[in-house]
Amino acid sequence: MTGKKKSAQASLEAMYRVFTVPEAPDSTLSRIDQDISRNMAGFLQEHIVAVERDLSDVEKNFSDYAIPEKPVFVSEQAQFLLDKLVANSVHTASPAFIGHMTSALPYFMLPLSKIMIALNQNLVKTETSKAFTPLERQVLGMIHRLVYKQDGPFYRKWMQDPRYSLGAMCSGGTIANLSALWVARNRAFPAEGSFRGLHEEGLFRALRYYGHEGAAIVVSDRGHYSLRKAADVLGLGRDALVSVETDDDNRIQIDALRDKCLELQKQKIKVMAICGVAGTTETGNVDPLDAMADIATEFGAHFHVDAAWGGPTLFSRTHQHLLRGIEKADSVTFDAHKQLYVPMGVGLVVFRDPSLASAVEHHAQYIIRKGSRDLGSTTLEGSRPGMSMLIHSGLRILGREGYEILIDQGIEKARTFADMITADPDFELVTKPELNILTYRYCPDKVQQALTMANELQAERLNTCLNRITKFIQKTQRERGKAFVSRTRLEPAHYYYFPCIVFRVVLANPLTTPEILSDILEEQKTLVQEAEIADEIAILEQMADAVLASEQRSTRQA
Amino acid sequence: MTGKKKSAQASLEAMYRVFTVPEAPDSTLSRIDQDISRNMAGFLQEHIVAVERDLSDVEKNFSDYAIPEKPVFVSEQAQFLLDKLVANSVHTASPAFIGHMTSALPYFMLPLSKIMIALNQNLVKTETSKAFTPLERQVLGMIHRLVYKQDGPFYRKWMQDPRYSLGAMCSGGTIANLSALWVARNRAFPAEGSFRGLHEEGLFRALRYYGHEGAAIVVSDRGHYSLRKAADVLGLGRDALVSVETDDDNRIQIDALRDKCLELQKQKIKVMAICGVAGTTETGNVDPLDAMADIATEFGAHFHVDAAWGGPTLFSRTHQHLLRGIEKADSVTFDAHKQLYVPMGVGLVVFRDPSLASAVEHHAQYIIRKGSRDLGSTTLEGSRPGMSMLIHSGLRILGREGYEILIDQGIEKARTFADMITADPDFELVTKPELNILTYRYCPDKVQQALTMANELQAERLNTCLNRITKFIQKTQRERGKAFVSRTRLEPAHYYYFPCIVFRVVLANPLTTPEILSDILEEQKTLVQEAEIADEIAILEQMADAVLASEQRSTRQA
Repeated sequence: MTGKKKSAQASLEAMYRVFTVPEAPDSTLSRIDQDISRNMAGFLQEHIVAVERDLSDVEKNFSDYAIPEKPVFVSEQAQFLLDKLVANSVHTASPAFIGHMTSALPYFMLPLSKIMIALNQNLVKTETSKAFTPLERQVLGMIHRLVYKQDGPFYRKWMQDPRYSLGAMCSGGTIANLSALWVARNRAFPAEGSFRGLHEEGLFRALRYYGHEGAAIVVSDRGHYSLRKAADVLGLGRDALVSVETDDDNRIQIDALRDKCLELQKQKIKVMAICGVAGTTETGNVDPLDAMADIATEFGAHFHVDAAWGGPTLFSRTHQHLLRGIEKADSVTFDAHKQLYVPMGVGLVVFRDPSLASAVEHHAQYIIRKGSRDLGSTTLEGSRPGMSMLIHSGLRILGREGYEILIDQGIEKARTFADMITADPDFELVTKPELNILTYRYCPDKVQQALTMANELQAERLNTCLNRITKFIQKTQRERGKAFVSRTRLEPAHYYYFPCIVFRVVLANPLTTPEILSDILEEQKTLVQEAEIADEIAILEQMADAVLASEQRSTRQA
Repeated sequence: MTGKKKSAQASLEAMYRVFTVPEAPDSTLSRIDQDISRNMAGFLQEHIVAVERDLSDVEKNFSDYAIPEKPVFVSEQAQFLLDKLVANSVHTASPAFIGHMTSALPYFMLPLSKIMIALNQNLVKTETSKAFTPLERQVLGMIHRLVYKQDGPFYRKWMQDPRYSLGAMCSGGTIANLSALWVARNRAFPAEGSFRGLHEEGLFRALRYYGHEGAAIVVSDRGHYSLRKAADVLGLGRDALVSVETDDDNRIQIDALRDKCLELQKQKIKVMAICGVAGTTETGNVDPLDAMADIATEFGAHFHVDAAWGGPTLFSRTHQHLLRGIEKADSVTFDAHKQLYVPMGVGLVVFRDPSLASAVEHHAQYIIRKGSRDLGSTTLEGSRPGMSMLIHSGLRILGREGYEILIDQGIEKARTFADMITADPDFELVTKPELNILTYRYCPDKVQQALTMANELQAERLNTCLNRITKFIQKTQRERGKAFVSRTRLEPAHYYYFPCIVFRVVLANPLTTPEILSDILEEQKTLVQEAEIADEIAILEQMADAVLASEQRSTRQA
């Protein structure tokens, strides 16, 4: 062998080793692996740096744009990831991380995920997934039943029938919502006479054929931004996402919804879908689904419910009534990586009618041939991992009762926190928890009082000032790394619809205790003392005093 | 405490344990976990049942449609998964599994995946992903550079600039293609004068404003089915996916492409995008990208390249020339779970121009606020896992050289296999490998000879008979469980475009040896001896004899 050939042979052998020889038990990566198995919480606690480093600083570790020419040792990469990536990641499992919808995972999800990854199945077709295909159908059936409560014969007939699908598994709620609205759009403009259907001829000809000027998706102004994205992707345009005012509890106003539909009808715009929200992202409220279903029927619209967050509330005998009417929906979105406590990247949509998914059926010769059992024919995505195995395991290992406990204690904890906020003169509860989400802000008693008396201009000034303070507290608390609440912007009617920035809290981590919640409030109060925000606080108090004084004067005069 | 309260307390504590106490080292799940770490290949070999069970039989294990009321022990679920799911899954990592694009994984991917899952980051926003955000931008930059070869200043300027994005990470090639065409569609009908752009006003008004009758995506007739799906989703309709004939090597015919574009133009249909294929799914051929780019420029169309399969060929100094012209593409799709050897569910699209992605930018108040560094603003998906960590690790641990070896040996192996097939009188090579994919079928020498002489009717009869035999062999071989080739349908010009079923082979697993390939051919020859197919074989031979005899007669007469 020549030297060149020898070295090529050596490289080839090195490559084989990468595919055949596991990491040695004492290698860096194996040690991390074992550490995580033994004590995931401890691993995260130990390796994630609590105090925030500036992202522009973190970026420096990820500035190489060249793929390295020569291989890097696994141990070197493992150490790099530990020091630069893990250390600067977010402790989403921390019980004090109550700002977003990503929470802790049950321990069994880790080894199960490993099995899933080792098997590396591809759900697009049975040739690369075999038993995973009926398993996925079963999971869709179970969630379908949770929502639609059909009887045994129904599921025995439809669940495993390869010609139908009770839903579609996907990477998350956004794709689930898009899939549902894709079905809705295609069904709103079906084949008829000489017209071969929107799915074949497109939206332009569909609207011309049916004599419409447009097609709309109607949702409350608290609808998730993925719906607007769906309107864009589907070719309807963002304008087609028509929003309807909500009441003081962030629920869609039914009269306004009907008026809006009538108005669209008058404009010759087809009401293609009405979307109910079961757990608004910002405030966790649930639309009056029952009444919305009736309006959808009235206007011949597809009724979709985005229950990405709130869907699992159906597990709770105490709270499932909040979602009354969801069983009338044509389609319902669930996110498994939210309140089904499955690792990131899986959601699903279920369809009431098993034939609905056929509106988006696609086939190819080398894959998902007609008549096959392949699940890929009615999903938006092609190749997909076997995440349904994790949902299946969650549903079995926790059981309905387990999920019920998780839901119930989350809602209860949110109420406890709401009480704590209300009882504390320094904070204002902005939205009460209906599910396990609430919003509040730092707003001392005196300012709250002033706000009830303020005219529009005064309220705007006070709220502008409060907005700056809220932003400062939220950002600083996140940076300090002990706790995290998120923030959003709401337009409360009683503050003349002025955009108010508020803390947003999601209580889904079962390990969050009332003590942790109390500490979060205490830390926020401490942050108000910071020099950086002192001027703002002083201005706020002066403004409040002025409002109160002028009010006293006018009361005395009266 | 009352009994009821006590039991509620006990359930709550059980729930805490699920989130806080790892599986015991001697539990079923821990043992599986350790087995996989020590020897993944052995675990798969031992636990996956080789001989195929009928899917309708497997389905029986997944027929419960009710979510169990009471929790099931983790050990019980683990055993269930081992017996019913793992046993009946597909050994995609087997070196004899050469039918699809899902292959073996490098060992280090397993512990790395575990870190990823334990961290449970959400890439939609930096608040739930922090360092993962610059990491993902880096990965997009690295792939961008692999394709577009821009210089240092380019990447230093754009790669980490939060206002731009060099691409979009997603769950796979289908979403990557859809994302690229979404961008293309929105950019084809931008805001102008009184028109606020397709993204706002929708396709109907866009076409009316610009005076078009439709918009088309043009691709060869070997384009992936996800493109047709994209045409449907985007509201263009499946008709809008206009296909162009390919030459004998399954590459788009450039003259036919230009003619088709001219024809569309005459019909007032906007050529919105031209898609080149770099690695056709069925035959692994690469379109003449360079020439296509020129035509795209000529018609003002977005030029997209679907390199889901073939993209990593760019790692190979020997073969990268096959993709010449890819650097002229506006967007390029890569699948990471294919030839980047990352576990199932990740793909990406890169954009030549960093401002392209802005055509699909979405924002919301509680998330991906304007000006934030959040990656969610230009991706189709919302919540997404940190899979880019695995791509990053692959690129670093294997290096360009490692991927080059994988690509080179795959193509070389495909050529070796092609030679074996050609040398064997019982088989016909249907498509030669350009990359690492080829197609062939069982077709004895005599039949091959007859086919060269057959008229259209005779060829149809012979091919119909061959189709049945190919189907039988492929299905039976799969069921026996030792090896797996897939099958597809091609329409070879020299067989009068009659649809011929062929074996399809993808040689991406570095562990596949020439011996394994030889065994596969041997097994296929044995299957031809099966009683079940005897009649078909006899008919085939008679027909071939008849064609040869009549040919001899006419030669003698002449």
